[in-house]
Amino acid sequence: MSTVAVDFSVWLSGRAQHIEQVLARILPQEVAVPARLHRAMRYSVLGGGKRVRAALVYAAARACEPVLSVQPAPERAWAQDLAAAAVELVHAYSLVHDDLPCMDDDVLRRGRPTVHVEFDEATALLAGDALQPLAFDLLAQMPIASELIVQATRDLARAAGSLGMAGGQAIDLESVGQALTQEALQHMHTLKTGALLEASVSLGGLAVEATEPQRNALSAYSAAIGLAFQVIDDVLDVTANSAQLGKTPGKDAAANKPTYVTLMGLAPARAFAGELHQRALAALRPLGASAALLAGMADFIVLRDH
Amino acid sequence: MSTVAVDFSVWLSGRAQHIEQVLARILPQEVAVPARLHRAMRYSVLGGGKRVRAALVYAAARACEPVLSVQPAPERAWAQDLAAAAVELVHAYSLVHDDLPCMDDDVLRRGRPTVHVEFDEATALLAGDALQPLAFDLLAQMPIASELIVQATRDLARAAGSLGMAGGQAIDLESVGQALTQEALQHMHTLKTGALLEASVSLGGLAVEATEPQRNALSAYSAAIGLAFQVIDDVLDVTANSAQLGKTPGKDAAANKPTYVTLMGLAPARAFAGELHQRALAALRPLGASAALLAGMADFIVLRDH
Repeated sequence: MSTVAVDFSVWLSGRAQHIEQVLARILPQEVAVPARLHRAMRYSVLGGGKRVRAALVYAAARACEPVLSVQPAPERAWAQDLAAAAVELVHAYSLVHDDLPCMDDDVLRRGRPTVHVEFDEATALLAGDALQPLAFDLLAQMPIASELIVQATRDLARAAGSLGMAGGQAIDLESVGQALTQEALQHMHTLKTGALLEASVSLGGLAVEATEPQRNALSAYSAAIGLAFQVIDDVLDVTANSAQLGKTPGKDAAANKPTYVTLMGLAPARAFAGELHQRALAALRPLGASAALLAGMADFIVLRDH
Repeated sequence: MSTVAVDFSVWLSGRAQHIEQVLARILPQEVAVPARLHRAMRYSVLGGGKRVRAALVYAAARACEPVLSVQPAPERAWAQDLAAAAVELVHAYSLVHDDLPCMDDDVLRRGRPTVHVEFDEATALLAGDALQPLAFDLLAQMPIASELIVQATRDLARAAGSLGMAGGQAIDLESVGQALTQEALQHMHTLKTGALLEASVSLGGLAVEATEPQRNALSAYSAAIGLAFQVIDDVLDVTANSAQLGKTPGKDAAANKPTYVTLMGLAPARAFAGELHQRALAALRPLGASAALLAGMADFIVLRDH
């Protein structure tokens, strides 16, 4: 393993620890009424995970950070923390609702009982419902130009809504047992997973007041990695074992859900992920050396084994 | 009935029709993928209701509208429409989730099957989940100063979150069969119903770029009517018949939920509502004659029979 790769993995785990602390501070404390709801919100969000979305915020911010900034350094860091926390809250709420009996009916997540098992269904529903507006509240607190907050709000709202994550979930539900075209599958994944990954990259740029050309480069990058993320998920669903995944492998295939692997075959799916990987790296070229962390994130997403 | 009261009821039903058209235009069309989700979202939001929250937006805007505004009239109207649509979307989403089997398990709302009955539980869950970010997207599109959009975002986010509507729902769930103090009951209602009514009034002011003193007057007014709304709901729960209510009366009392009537008795609860009514009207004095519609809304909320 090269020095760069070691540095990247140290950076990534450092960011995961950092955002965990930020989230622990930002979430309502358990003593605040309604205590049970607040306990459920904290349980939903805290306790790890790879924090890929938060890391994308930080990496995108680093890629666009001006050498001489008018933003004081602590404000610049706080804006990134708020944006990173916002995308993690939206991701966490989606997992809580996704695990509910009327959706995937999962009882375990990251080796712990899911929220509706640990608490109850109504509390899990409300915890998810309450995490979503908190994310928008955090964006509104970013110490950046108001115009950029408004843009960030639109980006996150679209990523979360019916033409983003929630829409992708709905298509996923409808597609069980259906034969999807590759185009339709790609559309579903772009909404379900890609939209929030793309918003994470965009919000990182906005948090450091990135220029228009920088934001265009980010956008091309994030479209490629958003899709690559899902292709690799489908590959891992059939190739990884449950210890690596932390969940039951082959579950999607067993549920008769269309995946890139069932659609293209394993080797072509891997090749497609490789192609998207290259497309993401090419998109970073205009950003120069400061995009090293974003390149690292692309490697991480495509080369991960779980 | 006085001429003023007739005018007010004409205004109110006109606004209800208007916001219905605005919402029909703003919501994703049914043909757009995912069609089933979009159908469920439209079913959740459209089809009437008193539109009290939208009316509060418009009435508050009228109370604060400058005689000579730098905002062109069409933009000023559109900002109000977007704010009114946003609060109606949040209200509609809360009803959809509230009706779910794990919450109140209601099968009828306004005489129609609830969303999870008409569609299915997963679709109802996702429809609610997708309505919430759409509300924030609409606020971000208001043609007003970005600083005011940011403030509106914070107001709506807090009204919807764990220290607002979702928090009130959680306390409500926990309070079944409990003896609450009046203070605790008031806190629950302030969160569950009052917070969004208050945000509606605040957003109306922001949509027309109200001054600080105007926004302070709005805030005092809305705190009083937010609470009055719930006291009257509790009174109607025991005094109205089901044709008036459009739902089963006595349901809260039967569910052993604490209400203002069970806590204070019927006559004192009515007297308390009257006191809040007077407090709301007093708060409007600094706004002068332009606050007539807000006064009408206070009368409407306290004197309604359903």
